[in-house]
Amino acid sequence: MEKVLIFGHKSPDTDSICSSMVAEKLAKHYGLDAEAVRLGDLNNETEYILNHLRLEAPRKISEVEEGQKVILVDHNEKDQSVEGRDSAEVIGVIDHHRISAFETVSPLYYIAKPYGCTSTVLYEIFKRENIEIDKVTAQLMLSAIVSDTLLLKSPTCTEKDVEAFNELEKISGLNAKAYGLEMLKAGTDLSMYSADEIINLDAKEFTQNGKKAVIAQVNTADINDVFTRKDEIAFAMEKSISERDLDLYMFLVTDIINTNSKAVVLGNERSAVEKAFGKTIDENDSVFLEGVVSRKKQVLPQILEVL
Amino acid sequence: MEKVLIFGHKSPDTDSICSSMVAEKLAKHYGLDAEAVRLGDLNNETEYILNHLRLEAPRKISEVEEGQKVILVDHNEKDQSVEGRDSAEVIGVIDHHRISAFETVSPLYYIAKPYGCTSTVLYEIFKRENIEIDKVTAQLMLSAIVSDTLLLKSPTCTEKDVEAFNELEKISGLNAKAYGLEMLKAGTDLSMYSADEIINLDAKEFTQNGKKAVIAQVNTADINDVFTRKDEIAFAMEKSISERDLDLYMFLVTDIINTNSKAVVLGNERSAVEKAFGKTIDENDSVFLEGVVSRKKQVLPQILEVL
Repeated sequence: MEKVLIFGHKSPDTDSICSSMVAEKLAKHYGLDAEAVRLGDLNNETEYILNHLRLEAPRKISEVEEGQKVILVDHNEKDQSVEGRDSAEVIGVIDHHRISAFETVSPLYYIAKPYGCTSTVLYEIFKRENIEIDKVTAQLMLSAIVSDTLLLKSPTCTEKDVEAFNELEKISGLNAKAYGLEMLKAGTDLSMYSADEIINLDAKEFTQNGKKAVIAQVNTADINDVFTRKDEIAFAMEKSISERDLDLYMFLVTDIINTNSKAVVLGNERSAVEKAFGKTIDENDSVFLEGVVSRKKQVLPQILEVL
Repeated sequence: MEKVLIFGHKSPDTDSICSSMVAEKLAKHYGLDAEAVRLGDLNNETEYILNHLRLEAPRKISEVEEGQKVILVDHNEKDQSVEGRDSAEVIGVIDHHRISAFETVSPLYYIAKPYGCTSTVLYEIFKRENIEIDKVTAQLMLSAIVSDTLLLKSPTCTEKDVEAFNELEKISGLNAKAYGLEMLKAGTDLSMYSADEIINLDAKEFTQNGKKAVIAQVNTADINDVFTRKDEIAFAMEKSISERDLDLYMFLVTDIINTNSKAVVLGNERSAVEKAFGKTIDENDSVFLEGVVSRKKQVLPQILEVL
């Protein structure tokens, strides 16, 4: 049987990694020869999770061959997906994002719901199809939900995420709050990363009206910690702008304790951010965004609107 | 509460009408103020069904207003959808087609499966969510499955369609085969239609690499019956090509008894059809396609590939 590769987006976050591993189980349940893979290095948070759960990370790939059957989780947009996807065959998508820059020649399985986390969509499938959720699967899904909803505190968090979180905690054998805090904290340690790496830990590229934008995000327990490195971060962003011909680069530093963000904004379309939030970018190329923690809900649509 | 409009594609077929009515029930089950509407006139087959089941047709609309919340069934492509969709808010899609020319600003519910009929996707949702399927709902879904799969004979028909068909027959109180044949036969009576109307009964527009194509289809019990009117049909097609600036117009006449098709092919890209099927268009602008009954599976992908 032909192998099916399952993966999340480039610069994979915890949801992309964990949901691809869970989707592998789902695909195997339906008799597919499936393998979860990843499109980039693990971030600290995901590294912590897999160590803690004693699981091996999926194999890393950089492209797919023509005709390769693939299932996408946690993304659908071309810019965020694997190299070579245009000539691959997408047989399924499980996602929780807007749909854009995605098209197929044939019908496919496409299950997307406006929940806080791909794993919550997967959880619902397991439940509705009466597929047993084993302990490890529950731990992976729970970790993804903690990560994407910042322990249920993000405005993207829905009732469905809370419901899944509560059920999965029982099966997982974990103390979700204590484990979740450790996990999130592990993700905020940026000390071993270069500025180049930091701006790529969770960077998503978008194209709107021919304008190319990247919105990157890191979590922190203290915004000032990250801003002590603002100069080298801005330098790395400028380099990326000229190398990738970007019109806008927004780097969000999100305080997961106080649920605010401060962003460094560069590029010739940086006024789009000022318009989107009615704020002025200061002389340090920065803007403080009170109450903003969700790129998907509180940043991206606002900027797309302006662009 | 804000009203949500639910509709299938332009030139609605039975699946578009019946699935929108079924999806209205589903949406109401979840507490939405939903209304099924339609984007065009009923065809004879659907007219027969609604008469037989003593149901009123959904209200016809021609456009939607800015910000209108909508749920699409049985389609997603912009060219096939309502006027004004770009400024409407698509909150859900239930479909069984490829995805193309579809994008949103925000996350949404998108449930598509590669089944023979949208109503089979809906049937699965009702079953999985433990929502009771009443008699009328079963009749509507059964009618849609009969129509889209030509009584389970089309190559688009999957195991899931057969399973739904069998279950729904029990609930519906109908003799599915006898009813289905009557229904399909009612759809083949084209005598009261002008040529203009015939080519628009089930016409779908596609854009590929900037080339605009329409593939229209009618069912018949005897291909020759339709081809006695070939000249006026070709005239109507030529008119449509120049009015809509089309590169290709393919009009498929499908014999539902012997499961073959014969097509009239016009437009400056008509050689795409010759390449796609390795056949020559004859001096009557026609080509016979043995065993071809499904536009979605046996015609569209082949032509997209060539274009």
